[in-house]
Amino acid sequence: MREKLLIERIIGAIRDVLPESDRPVGLHEPYFGGNEWNYVRECIDTGWVSYLGKFVDQFENVLAEFTGVKKAVALVNGTAALHIGLKMAGVGYKDEVMVPALTFVATANAVTYCGGTPHFIDSEEKTLGINPAKLASYLGEIAEIRDDGCFNKKTGHYIRVVVPMHTFGHPVDIDPLADLCRAYGIEMIEDAAESLGSYYKGRHTGNWGKCSVLSFNGNKIVTTGGGGAVLTNDETLGEKIKYLTATAKIPHRWEYRHDSVGYNYRLPNINAALGCAQMEELHSFLEKKRILASKYEAAMSDIEGVSFFKEPDFARSNYWLNLLLLDNACVDQRDKLLEAAHTHNIIMRPVWTLMHKLPMYKDCPKMDLSTAESLERRIINIPSSPKLALQDIRIDKEVS
Amino acid sequence: MREKLLIERIIGAIRDVLPESDRPVGLHEPYFGGNEWNYVRECIDTGWVSYLGKFVDQFENVLAEFTGVKKAVALVNGTAALHIGLKMAGVGYKDEVMVPALTFVATANAVTYCGGTPHFIDSEEKTLGINPAKLASYLGEIAEIRDDGCFNKKTGHYIRVVVPMHTFGHPVDIDPLADLCRAYGIEMIEDAAESLGSYYKGRHTGNWGKCSVLSFNGNKIVTTGGGGAVLTNDETLGEKIKYLTATAKIPHRWEYRHDSVGYNYRLPNINAALGCAQMEELHSFLEKKRILASKYEAAMSDIEGVSFFKEPDFARSNYWLNLLLLDNACVDQRDKLLEAAHTHNIIMRPVWTLMHKLPMYKDCPKMDLSTAESLERRIINIPSSPKLALQDIRIDKEVS
Repeated sequence: MREKLLIERIIGAIRDVLPESDRPVGLHEPYFGGNEWNYVRECIDTGWVSYLGKFVDQFENVLAEFTGVKKAVALVNGTAALHIGLKMAGVGYKDEVMVPALTFVATANAVTYCGGTPHFIDSEEKTLGINPAKLASYLGEIAEIRDDGCFNKKTGHYIRVVVPMHTFGHPVDIDPLADLCRAYGIEMIEDAAESLGSYYKGRHTGNWGKCSVLSFNGNKIVTTGGGGAVLTNDETLGEKIKYLTATAKIPHRWEYRHDSVGYNYRLPNINAALGCAQMEELHSFLEKKRILASKYEAAMSDIEGVSFFKEPDFARSNYWLNLLLLDNACVDQRDKLLEAAHTHNIIMRPVWTLMHKLPMYKDCPKMDLSTAESLERRIINIPSSPKLALQDIRIDKEVS
Repeated sequence: MREKLLIERIIGAIRDVLPESDRPVGLHEPYFGGNEWNYVRECIDTGWVSYLGKFVDQFENVLAEFTGVKKAVALVNGTAALHIGLKMAGVGYKDEVMVPALTFVATANAVTYCGGTPHFIDSEEKTLGINPAKLASYLGEIAEIRDDGCFNKKTGHYIRVVVPMHTFGHPVDIDPLADLCRAYGIEMIEDAAESLGSYYKGRHTGNWGKCSVLSFNGNKIVTTGGGGAVLTNDETLGEKIKYLTATAKIPHRWEYRHDSVGYNYRLPNINAALGCAQMEELHSFLEKKRILASKYEAAMSDIEGVSFFKEPDFARSNYWLNLLLLDNACVDQRDKLLEAAHTHNIIMRPVWTLMHKLPMYKDCPKMDLSTAESLERRIINIPSSPKLALQDIRIDKEVS
């Protein structure tokens, strides 16, 4: 009886927040209300749809300006960006890379592409991301600082990189992580795929570490269809990434010559055109998403057994994907709640299965993951598209 | 004096073929005269710009139908398609893959991505592609057929795959290559990146081997901005490639779970939309390109020192990039010819630097490469866009 009440109250609260809709309401749908048409049309009219063209340069410039980094390189997706970032941090055969157990699979896969091994780290409830204090004590146990890097005494391999991920747009506590990395001689690559528009202590996420990664997948706050970017404050590194991801071709009027194993990771101009138009709307998207988050927060405030997740106190989040946290006592109701939501045409989702539970990563090194495991049982993502902040509109876009 | 005459005669002949233009005439420029804008606009209007959407399915179906294969999987580019194809053929650490020395660098890079080593093979002048007779005698020397594969006695590693590449759209002599592969227990992956619309003995290229690869880069006969595809006649393999290139996510209403290391190699719907419109124009493009090739052939027929390269007699080529072959006695005039062409606003280009001359591949195994080396000195690509077949138009598109 109490159980049914909780589910009904949550669904009721969400329906009160959302505008009316006769189609399923997706988790995060793109919205094209600005110059998307104009810019894409220009690509088709001029023939500049591929890897060269003004929108690629413009998109990179506007990304760098918005996030405050020195250089942005637009790439084909966030996974490619992670791969090249880890390569640049020197990850090679059997090297370990510390990634949160609670992340999207691309973070771990990119390590594997380099020949390395993901090493899974626990989260803290305040940020959903890597717990710096717990990581510090874990490194104290397993790590030995050597001249050639941070040696894992337990596995006999080197820990080269830590990849903090800003989960659902909420910034990790980066300062203590950066201190830890410095102390142990470990590089940091920020996985900011979900945090465009999110700030840590007033500075945009993606400004720490050797470089960082954005995603412009169709479900992100800004989309290019498929796309991603590397951000860095090291201009030389930025130029190198641009070169290597464009097949490492030596510039020449007609000769075709390459001087290293490069990648074909460039973002086409037609996708960058979409990105340029979307970036013009980003401030408006962020504003709407904060309104939506406040509405959810208010709607959930008096429901016992569940809480709305709020940005950490040191952060200003983009609230990319809003989420509820079930109380421990209510986790057995999660699947019934998801079922009920689908019946009501509201798309809701649990968090990704934790990385160490996936068959290909089950034997990878890991620390105690009790907080991530608790969060895995309790997180429920709820619809978060910016347009949902507007009560007086009807939803007439299809769900993506 | 004679030298100057050759250069002048070649440039003059090309200018006679080409329509008037006050912009540089590129090697191969996209042409969007059909439904490109309608389909792309539909993506933007409905919000379906990313990895799901009807144009991806439609593009895959139309590719399979046009080429006559059982299954096509649309991917983010041809390099990604080569990578997943080689993975599926079992290429792993230190395995050798035989690729032509005369190819675009992606063919060799994709081998490296798998941890393998490219092994460079000579071309024949008739096709510009792998010389089957020469490869047969080379394999006779170095290879030992073992239960677990084709062993290279010289290097101590296994030769897993041969990758014939249909250079500039002209089909390799595939039948004897397929026989060789069968005899030695080597897989074949066709690099058909340049040969959409090219037929070998009446059958579309890309139908041989375990699978094959297309490219839809901006300079290809059909473009999606950036894009590629795997073609295969093994439907189970096709489904597996589709699954692995879409992050290997197990289908579920809400759970996010992956069961193997997958890739984010999907083609976005907005790029597939462009591809669907372009495929509607392919017959017209092919027709125009044959007209252009005939014009070039006629224009070059009485110039001593140079010849226009014609499709092999067993093939019907798409004539993707037209090319001239300088006589051996005239190779010292190549760079002057390229210089003169650029002065006349005509983009011409030598072939790619041969793979074994690139610093990252200089120590890879290779056979005698004398024909490829001769071709490298003698090939000159000339403008090949379909619209150039129309004498009565003026070129008003920018060069890409």
